[in-house]
Amino acid sequence: MSKTKWNVAVVGATGAVGEQIIGLLEKRDFPIDKLKLLSSARSAGTVLRFKGQDIIVEEAGPDSFEGIDIALFSAGGDVSKVLAPHAVRHGAICIDNTNAFRMDPDTPLVVPEVNEEKIFEHHGIIANPNCSTIQMVAALKPLYDRYGISRIIVSTYQAVSGAGTKAINEMLRQSKEVLEGNEVKPDILPVGSLPVKHQIAFNAIPQIDKFQDNGYTLEEMKMIRETKKIFGDDSIEVTATCVRIPVVYGHSESVYVELKQDYNLEEVSALLAKAPGVQVVDDPANQGYPLATMAAGKNDVFVGRLRRDLTHERALNMWIVSDNLLKGAAWNAVQIAEIIAAKG
Amino acid sequence: MSKTKWNVAVVGATGAVGEQIIGLLEKRDFPIDKLKLLSSARSAGTVLRFKGQDIIVEEAGPDSFEGIDIALFSAGGDVSKVLAPHAVRHGAICIDNTNAFRMDPDTPLVVPEVNEEKIFEHHGIIANPNCSTIQMVAALKPLYDRYGISRIIVSTYQAVSGAGTKAINEMLRQSKEVLEGNEVKPDILPVGSLPVKHQIAFNAIPQIDKFQDNGYTLEEMKMIRETKKIFGDDSIEVTATCVRIPVVYGHSESVYVELKQDYNLEEVSALLAKAPGVQVVDDPANQGYPLATMAAGKNDVFVGRLRRDLTHERALNMWIVSDNLLKGAAWNAVQIAEIIAAKG
Repeated sequence: MSKTKWNVAVVGATGAVGEQIIGLLEKRDFPIDKLKLLSSARSAGTVLRFKGQDIIVEEAGPDSFEGIDIALFSAGGDVSKVLAPHAVRHGAICIDNTNAFRMDPDTPLVVPEVNEEKIFEHHGIIANPNCSTIQMVAALKPLYDRYGISRIIVSTYQAVSGAGTKAINEMLRQSKEVLEGNEVKPDILPVGSLPVKHQIAFNAIPQIDKFQDNGYTLEEMKMIRETKKIFGDDSIEVTATCVRIPVVYGHSESVYVELKQDYNLEEVSALLAKAPGVQVVDDPANQGYPLATMAAGKNDVFVGRLRRDLTHERALNMWIVSDNLLKGAAWNAVQIAEIIAAKG
Repeated sequence: MSKTKWNVAVVGATGAVGEQIIGLLEKRDFPIDKLKLLSSARSAGTVLRFKGQDIIVEEAGPDSFEGIDIALFSAGGDVSKVLAPHAVRHGAICIDNTNAFRMDPDTPLVVPEVNEEKIFEHHGIIANPNCSTIQMVAALKPLYDRYGISRIIVSTYQAVSGAGTKAINEMLRQSKEVLEGNEVKPDILPVGSLPVKHQIAFNAIPQIDKFQDNGYTLEEMKMIRETKKIFGDDSIEVTATCVRIPVVYGHSESVYVELKQDYNLEEVSALLAKAPGVQVVDDPANQGYPLATMAAGKNDVFVGRLRRDLTHERALNMWIVSDNLLKGAAWNAVQIAEIIAAKG
């Protein structure tokens, strides 16, 4: 007998992504029997609303997952590493929004528009990719299927919400300080756990996450590795430059794509227009193109500035924008949960 | 007998770039005999300070240039098109900061670090390149000389000051409105003369200047065409995506460069470190890389995030930042004036 109602746990319920997950579970009317909200000891006791009911957030621990069917994790990689195996032990399917298991060969890394079929190959954990990767691969999927992709060169324009609620507050506070002519004292960005801080208000910081030995940041390496894994194709060459800019919600990406075959630009536009979860906004004559302010609060990936590259005959350039907390995190996770629920 | 003191005119004296030119002429102690400040009828009558003296800004007209040796234009392309020929007729050398003559085959397009020798091939007008082009070619020059450059793919993160004082004020005003929870009503950006306006505060706008028939904006085409002209090498392939972000001063650029020969990354860093007008800030271990806030108010071009590309063995990626009003406009123009003055 297949399930029709599910016991769901949200780990990291008080965080920027957790808040969006709870909102989506309500808005999408996810078939929930019991909803358990979990957090660190610091945030435990917080009361959150779900469908008109107050739910008290509990401290997450190894035994929080008894009776849970689906656990959505977004409390940081360290929490997932420790607690997701306990959730699996209790029989839950974990949808993990952190970097903890993404490159684990036994863990599927899923963007439903690209590789939905991988969901059911899980061994208890399904990984949600990095926000900047998700929106890019969702938009590139129709081009991959039709023409093949040989190479991607991407530069990102990423919102501070990707670094959490504290980073949002820091950016807004700094902006106010600059406008009032006061001194700015950065204390979170670019990376909370690293010693050097940089002003994000009215600035662009070319560092997201820690530097790796090859001079790339972890965020850049995530985009590179995850893109290959999601497409299941190591032959795709990817290089990335990831930059934080003073935007609250919505990552933008300037993407150069080299295809394996020649293409027709109108066909590209038509393929994208009918792709699931993708909206084409590409009307230069009327100054129509995707903007972070347009994508904020929406589940879709917005694509525009489609044009033939001027340096390579099989390449094109595009501008891809999406809400990093929704399709880039919470919505992709809830989408996966919905697909699991639909199969009972 | 060679000149030792020069009569200098600044056209567009009350604009964002004009203000910087006047400041640099004073700071650099440019050998000025008489300084004439010119503007539109609207701003004429404004009083500006130069070396402790008040100078009344006069309305620019065809006869404003009598006795002028060097005229620095930054009042928009239309003004340059009309008035620069009159300045030339009066015997002045024009250094034009607008797009009016840049691609004219008879007009040298000069970045002193790259093609200083072209200055003296002028027929009355020397063009200052576009801000986003200048900083890129200044940083790429040592690589061009040592290895040759076959291809450039650039995505920009451009400051609002590139669109003038009104755009700066609009961005600051909008930021305040957003922080106070008020509605934002854009009225300048992305392009003052076009009907559709977009919010720039806490946003990223992938349009700078008007769209051309090929889907690229004029700003993008400027970067493409001007790079070839400044290097005097049409074989360099360039593609660009130009984006406005909420920064006041300082353009940042994510640049992918394909070289003609294999290279050594330490050598690249050493070549850049000793290049004139370039400062290398590239210390990932201590989170050191160029930032707009670091470049603002400085004449140099800052380069960092140097790393081997992961998709092409002869390519590298870099992050280039400079003050768009200084090296990107006023300083490049004053540098050219200084070179002319030095030759008497």
